[in-house]
Amino acid sequence: MRKVKVEKKILIANAEYAEQNSRFLAERKLPCLNVISSPGSGKTTILAKTIEGLKGKVRIGVIEGDIQTDIDARRILAAGAAAVQINTDGACHLSAAQVHNALQQLPVNELDLVFIENVGNLVCPSAFELGETAKVAVLSVPEGDDKPAKYPAIFARARALLINKIDLLGAVDFDIEKAEADVLKLNKGIRIFPVSAKTEEGMSNWYDWLYELTQNKRR
Amino acid sequence: MRKVKVEKKILIANAEYAEQNSRFLAERKLPCLNVISSPGSGKTTILAKTIEGLKGKVRIGVIEGDIQTDIDARRILAAGAAAVQINTDGACHLSAAQVHNALQQLPVNELDLVFIENVGNLVCPSAFELGETAKVAVLSVPEGDDKPAKYPAIFARARALLINKIDLLGAVDFDIEKAEADVLKLNKGIRIFPVSAKTEEGMSNWYDWLYELTQNKRR
Repeated sequence: MRKVKVEKKILIANAEYAEQNSRFLAERKLPCLNVISSPGSGKTTILAKTIEGLKGKVRIGVIEGDIQTDIDARRILAAGAAAVQINTDGACHLSAAQVHNALQQLPVNELDLVFIENVGNLVCPSAFELGETAKVAVLSVPEGDDKPAKYPAIFARARALLINKIDLLGAVDFDIEKAEADVLKLNKGIRIFPVSAKTEEGMSNWYDWLYELTQNKRR
Repeated sequence: MRKVKVEKKILIANAEYAEQNSRFLAERKLPCLNVISSPGSGKTTILAKTIEGLKGKVRIGVIEGDIQTDIDARRILAAGAAAVQINTDGACHLSAAQVHNALQQLPVNELDLVFIENVGNLVCPSAFELGETAKVAVLSVPEGDDKPAKYPAIFARARALLINKIDLLGAVDFDIEKAEADVLKLNKGIRIFPVSAKTEEGMSNWYDWLYELTQNKRR
């Protein structure tokens, strides 16, 4: 009983910060996407390419969540965007309080879009609201087409899914139609973008979707 | 303060079950390996191939941990081993209590080796002892060579590491010497097996290591 009560307390404290973040972003009409995937699905490469692909059109800031190291924030800075690194020091997801602090450090009045790159983990981050506008899931082809069925929570909650590393479709067993059908069973409104961040195949559809998102928000 | 106290209580309860599991396995001189990796690194394929590769030499049982579905347990049964499926129903790691129950369902007196395939998650499972003999990490080439630096806990704690999907080394950027050096910095005693479960390249070294493990235990 006590365990359940305290877990609820932690979630309530997180929800309060998430609500503050949500208000902070809404006041500035600033969309914020919480990007969630397994380690190594290509989140950072996608974001670095997206920053370059939308240069001059959408001003992007990134909150980088990692257990250790600032490897990812350095990649984002090199791509030309504002970046704040959060090290969770062992924790398996970002908290809304951490994002609250990071938002104070970003030049939010000069941005059109904020990405939160969550800790690489297909399970835990989907349970913690950060106050984001929407969640974006990434699934890479080498991970296998059974992942939506086996790890449904994030696929059910995301507004968009990038199926990344489609340049490897010939090298591994991955039935993209099966993966898409399983995702749509969980979440019929989700937008699915098959892409290769490496070769940039399919990325322009994703850029267009992001551009629309920033235009809708600014209206 | 209260949060910390209760988290400690949960870990103590887990440690008590882990201690029971450890005793149960030691009494039967039965080695048990807790296999931990991200989703989609190839744990189930490795186990299915290992069951076939050691057929007639090592009798293997598998405890399959998944959030949802019994896809993996069916693959293990098809490979010819005893299997028990645990569905964690959302939880991001197996607990020692779940493994305690699963061990009662396996024909342990007819087995030489037990694998626990943990939930696909590179972060949380490494913090929960299950009473296993040792942890085994799996890192697949498409995940990237920066993962040991970014997710050090499991690489520091594992007795062996399989670097899987080496058949994709030509198709993706992965510096295997860098990955191995980063792992050895965290854990100089670890055994590293570069393998492709798909093509079976390198798998015989892994089979030999497992065979030795069962022989040492039975002496």
